[in-house]
Amino acid sequence: MSITWLNQIKWNEDGLVPAIAQDFQTNEVLMMAWMNKASLELTIKEQRAIYWSRSRQKLWRKGEESGHVQTLHGIYLDCDNDVILLKVEQLGKIACHTGRISCFYRELKDNQWVEISSPLKNPEEIYHKS
Amino acid sequence: MSITWLNQIKWNEDGLVPAIAQDFQTNEVLMMAWMNKASLELTIKEQRAIYWSRSRQKLWRKGEESGHVQTLHGIYLDCDNDVILLKVEQLGKIACHTGRISCFYRELKDNQWVEISSPLKNPEEIYHKS
Repeated sequence: MSITWLNQIKWNEDGLVPAIAQDFQTNEVLMMAWMNKASLELTIKEQRAIYWSRSRQKLWRKGEESGHVQTLHGIYLDCDNDVILLKVEQLGKIACHTGRISCFYRELKDNQWVEISSPLKNPEEIYHKS
Repeated sequence: MSITWLNQIKWNEDGLVPAIAQDFQTNEVLMMAWMNKASLELTIKEQRAIYWSRSRQKLWRKGEESGHVQTLHGIYLDCDNDVILLKVEQLGKIACHTGRISCFYRELKDNQWVEISSPLKNPEEIYHKS
């Protein structure tokens, strides 16, 4: 059956796996979030990244509020069957809710997390708050 | 104190965070494993990736058996403080225990996980099994 590939994935005790999103052109790692079976199936059906929000306990269609949708270019599985890698086109070039390209915008330098990139857009502008 | 940066990380209920390893030159995502505080401190001290093996419940000095050490080029933290990204030089050009460059060597195509890269070396040769 067509769901064999879904069952080959080793979902954790909460029914989730980590999903890494990577820019399909630059290979920059944009973010890591979590997926359950439903979100992964929808990701493929809708050809855009759809995660499971652990904090909100609901499906998270990446970009649903911000417009920063991630369109799908490829899905990969690791050797242990427990991590997913997505190659995506990041619409708006902003993956992070802080307005930055990538969520990994702090680097450890001399025992401190130092910001190495700036927001391209103000989060208040992204989320249309007044 | 110098450990402030460690405590800024949101360790999960098991005291772990996911750590993504990325090739510092090509940006290829090589693998994802887990770290605890001790492994992250050692990673910085020894300037090589040291993970926490959940299956073996012990420190895993990446390359300790295979020689495929990951030397450290940078450590990054995501916006939620709960995912680490490492930029590494992958010695031997093989991150995966199957002998491949990356652990993400299967792509979903027509509802099947299809191998898209081949081993550069036989695992039996890597791990010196007779």
